[in-house]
Amino acid sequence: MNHAAEPIHSSISGGFLRHYMDIIADKALPYQWQVISGQRGPNPTVNNFRIAAGEVKGEFGGVPYQDTDLSKWLDAVGCALRNRRDASLEAIADAVIETIANAQDADGYLDTYYQLVRPNEKWTDPDSHELYCFGHMIEAGVAYWEGTGKTRLLEVACRMADHVCRVFGPEAGQLHGYRGHEIIEMALCRLFRATGETRYRDTAVWFVHARRDTPEQFYQATRKEGNPLDYGCWGWGDPERETSSYEHVTGHAVRAMYLYAGMADVAQLTGDEALLAHCRELLDEVTRRQMYITGGIGTTSVLEAYTYPYDLPNDTMYAETCASIGLCFFAHRMLMMQPDGELSDVIERCIYNILPAAIAQDGQHYFYVNPLQVNEEACRRDPLKTHVKPVRQAWYECACCPPNLARFFSSLPRYTATVQEGRLWLHLYAQGCTSFKLGGANITVAQHTDYPMEGRVRITVATDKPTAFALMLRIPGWCRRFWIDGRPGSSGMLSRGYLAIERNWSGETVLTLEMDMTPYMMQAHPRVREDSGKIVLTRGPVVYCCEEADNGALVEDLRASASAPIEQTWQNDVPGFGEYVGLSVPGKASSAAALAEERLYFPVEMSARNVTVKAIPYCLWGERVPGEMTVWIGRL
Amino acid sequence: MNHAAEPIHSSISGGFLRHYMDIIADKALPYQWQVISGQRGPNPTVNNFRIAAGEVKGEFGGVPYQDTDLSKWLDAVGCALRNRRDASLEAIADAVIETIANAQDADGYLDTYYQLVRPNEKWTDPDSHELYCFGHMIEAGVAYWEGTGKTRLLEVACRMADHVCRVFGPEAGQLHGYRGHEIIEMALCRLFRATGETRYRDTAVWFVHARRDTPEQFYQATRKEGNPLDYGCWGWGDPERETSSYEHVTGHAVRAMYLYAGMADVAQLTGDEALLAHCRELLDEVTRRQMYITGGIGTTSVLEAYTYPYDLPNDTMYAETCASIGLCFFAHRMLMMQPDGELSDVIERCIYNILPAAIAQDGQHYFYVNPLQVNEEACRRDPLKTHVKPVRQAWYECACCPPNLARFFSSLPRYTATVQEGRLWLHLYAQGCTSFKLGGANITVAQHTDYPMEGRVRITVATDKPTAFALMLRIPGWCRRFWIDGRPGSSGMLSRGYLAIERNWSGETVLTLEMDMTPYMMQAHPRVREDSGKIVLTRGPVVYCCEEADNGALVEDLRASASAPIEQTWQNDVPGFGEYVGLSVPGKASSAAALAEERLYFPVEMSARNVTVKAIPYCLWGERVPGEMTVWIGRL
Repeated sequence: MNHAAEPIHSSISGGFLRHYMDIIADKALPYQWQVISGQRGPNPTVNNFRIAAGEVKGEFGGVPYQDTDLSKWLDAVGCALRNRRDASLEAIADAVIETIANAQDADGYLDTYYQLVRPNEKWTDPDSHELYCFGHMIEAGVAYWEGTGKTRLLEVACRMADHVCRVFGPEAGQLHGYRGHEIIEMALCRLFRATGETRYRDTAVWFVHARRDTPEQFYQATRKEGNPLDYGCWGWGDPERETSSYEHVTGHAVRAMYLYAGMADVAQLTGDEALLAHCRELLDEVTRRQMYITGGIGTTSVLEAYTYPYDLPNDTMYAETCASIGLCFFAHRMLMMQPDGELSDVIERCIYNILPAAIAQDGQHYFYVNPLQVNEEACRRDPLKTHVKPVRQAWYECACCPPNLARFFSSLPRYTATVQEGRLWLHLYAQGCTSFKLGGANITVAQHTDYPMEGRVRITVATDKPTAFALMLRIPGWCRRFWIDGRPGSSGMLSRGYLAIERNWSGETVLTLEMDMTPYMMQAHPRVREDSGKIVLTRGPVVYCCEEADNGALVEDLRASASAPIEQTWQNDVPGFGEYVGLSVPGKASSAAALAEERLYFPVEMSARNVTVKAIPYCLWGERVPGEMTVWIGRL
Repeated sequence: MNHAAEPIHSSISGGFLRHYMDIIADKALPYQWQVISGQRGPNPTVNNFRIAAGEVKGEFGGVPYQDTDLSKWLDAVGCALRNRRDASLEAIADAVIETIANAQDADGYLDTYYQLVRPNEKWTDPDSHELYCFGHMIEAGVAYWEGTGKTRLLEVACRMADHVCRVFGPEAGQLHGYRGHEIIEMALCRLFRATGETRYRDTAVWFVHARRDTPEQFYQATRKEGNPLDYGCWGWGDPERETSSYEHVTGHAVRAMYLYAGMADVAQLTGDEALLAHCRELLDEVTRRQMYITGGIGTTSVLEAYTYPYDLPNDTMYAETCASIGLCFFAHRMLMMQPDGELSDVIERCIYNILPAAIAQDGQHYFYVNPLQVNEEACRRDPLKTHVKPVRQAWYECACCPPNLARFFSSLPRYTATVQEGRLWLHLYAQGCTSFKLGGANITVAQHTDYPMEGRVRITVATDKPTAFALMLRIPGWCRRFWIDGRPGSSGMLSRGYLAIERNWSGETVLTLEMDMTPYMMQAHPRVREDSGKIVLTRGPVVYCCEEADNGALVEDLRASASAPIEQTWQNDVPGFGEYVGLSVPGKASSAAALAEERLYFPVEMSARNVTVKAIPYCLWGERVPGEMTVWIGRL
């Protein structure tokens, strides 16, 4: 198979996605630096490295994986600088990279928790976050090098990777497994791609194969007493469910996605078709059975885990921001090997719904858990929902999501297009440009669009010499009608969700893709019990929700008419966001008499109050007046 | 006020309630004895007493409140013997009562856990179950005396009560509070009524007043480290929510009901109108805001507690059997002071729905948690539902419910009627007889009925001399049409849910009450988010549910037509129960195409499959083929 994607450079210069990239670059990254460097109140992250580097005296603070708040932030800075240079951000990063380099042990080890707190216990606890800390710093090293060309952090990363390659492997004297929190697999593959150093690839392959071939050995280490990750008190305790598995979708949602993304990397680097097919089964199991309509994954807060197929409660879920980022990592890697609109649909679902919802327009407030139904009283008074926050928070004690969002949004351009099999695949529509070489020609494909606010994409293909190739336009799974240059297309014209435009391109060619953005109602598979009899309003890839701000309290009481047309209104009431399309549809709600009932149960009301059900994009929930929200609403 | 109910004797001789009383007497009590005496596998209950009595050597086994499995069983035996003598049961009880008496310390202390395991720590842990163990044994002593006239256990009870009266109180050297698990308040009042010993009443009053007047002192004791009841791992930890409160409905559902029942006792014994009014507010808060349509209470498994008004999830709830028994205790005591149909409705809701559901026809299987929606996979794979069992269990490690059900059902006759304010109030309709004295006359009121299977009750009033009094017939809250001797009645004729039939009775008079049993659909208050857009099929006081056995899998996908008539069918497919009325109504379910969808989300289906939604009484769920069940179903 020819699974390797060709070199390509894409940029996003405007529209919805650029808006979030700018929130990250202009607001979130400076804010996050202030937080992790302790300028906005006590935060130990950067200080831990300063202590480890000998720059200051003090004691380690925070959680055992505190280091990753900084490494993810540096990863994000690297990606952001690739999009747009920023001298002040770069100066801050350069300085802290020096500290990091000085904190590294001579043997390449770098994990300030172990260095400062448990120096004699390195690599003794298979449930530790050491490999997680190593992996994120390796990713940061590559990203910062890609964004700036500077190698200081890449060198740190290589020394860390070399250390991992010495410690782990099949040989006697090496460790043969380590559960912890996955990412090392992805990180080593990424470092191999950046450096060409085959031992990084080989160790990544070994990590994946060891799980596959000797899982007992890999998982055999027993959990230590008093380990900060001891979940014993949850009364769950089934190791099968706690740990990511090569075989099945199980365990902690983020960890599973990171493992599977790493497995996909290994499938690509080794050309392992069986592994690729297995990865696809795992992905389908997640996206066809265990994914919220917003792109959220992870059904339960208990171990932040999956439960069972079609179990998708809307109010007790976890749906952690990082899990959906991991899902994008995984789907993107699969897409690079096997273009398939279903994979792009998954990424689109995440990047227009759960992921932008997880960050406020001010870049300084975040959701970690992303509910589909929320009311403040439940978050406060129902112990099964205390993990759900009804408004975005300024920071979290476990702050994995904010910097992870920053690095993900900053890296969005690489998700837009790939060159594979001699074709250019356009996966995402966004104002911007993709340039690549093909058959000796320098080609650019520019997109002019306000997608997903509008369905029109003007594509300009420019080549410096005539070249025959197929432009593969993704027609999203949600799209029921589309036109190319005004001529209607049909699903019969698509191959795996892509429309091939085969031409001998020369000079500049303009094409127009128009996707029908008429709003529509979606339902869930009948096996999703929580959504029985309910619908979601959608428009293009954008999932809508009903807020108290527009509908009054008790949004779960709304029932929308499934047969009435959905009205669209341009609204501009979310400061910082600009105009967006609001939706409304006629519906019913309980009568005033029913609401005034003293009785808890009474004969069914045959009449009801006429209402207009109003909805806004889910990603904007909680941006106006805080209050109740629901994605799923009753249907008439 | 004249809140004291007059002496009265009622019996239940046939029909639904007698059926469950017989299950208890004939099947459950012998079975439960075999369990707690260790004849059906290891169970330490009776053996603990034997060890404490010096009859055998060994070590205490079980939970700290293990004693109550026996004391509740003896309470149940006492009540059952009052209904029907049973020499073999009585012989077993007499023998074990000797053991109990021998286990009691010279100072009256009796709690085998503390006696055997922590002899030097009596009354040192305010969160212990000591008062709970004492209270249940005191209740058993009274019940056994009432049922048999034998005083051996009553004497044990009096010594225990004397001990409590010495240890607790306002004086220096006495303990001023103890959280634990309430029941001592009820128990002391019951013992006072049985013996006339005022110190029992006075100490019960002190327990209630101390909570009201010096709650900080009452609750001040801090929880001990390592206490078996330390719920710290739940991450809940708000003491306000953990402990029953005099002021608000909060904390553990069973404990709160027991406390409130005791408060109602104290209100009655002291004539405290303010306390009575406060109790009524607490009861209304529970029954109008926090009670399931089945009579279940207790919203969350975390601390087995209430959460907030109208929060009534159907699948993660606790709805413990004991909590609804406690609710009946509370409502019954209130009813004795202030006849009100709403109170009888609450009791009826429990005794025809959640409580019979909690015991199998074989008398040997029980529900502790009583879900309104269940599927086996969720119970197994969703950590928020592992406390829910999809089938009745033979026993529980915390086996509070089986013997509590036994004592409750055995005591049902006392719930049927009361004489108050010179009137006879008929609260429950059941085949049986009530006899009492009034103004020198001996009066009997016999009921002939198959209620709730049928709505007709033939009431025969017989008196040995002419007497004028009002017969107060309860017209249930669910009843929309009724007839007295064929003449239609109306709600305008009712006072607080009762119809007064004032006559100068002489000889034998026959009246016929006919209640319309036409099935109907109920809805919940719109603020119950979990039930939005859903209905429940009901017939009389009986709540129905849809089972997989009748409807196939995915019962949550059913939508019933709210405008179609509901059909009734006599069915006879629950072994041991006899005939019952099944209900069916036209409805819709997802199409085969929707069920076969590979996609998790797709455009809303405008057509659907026609189905007949079939329902059986909730109390019979899980009695045929185990499978899915739901009480609330979608409405069309």
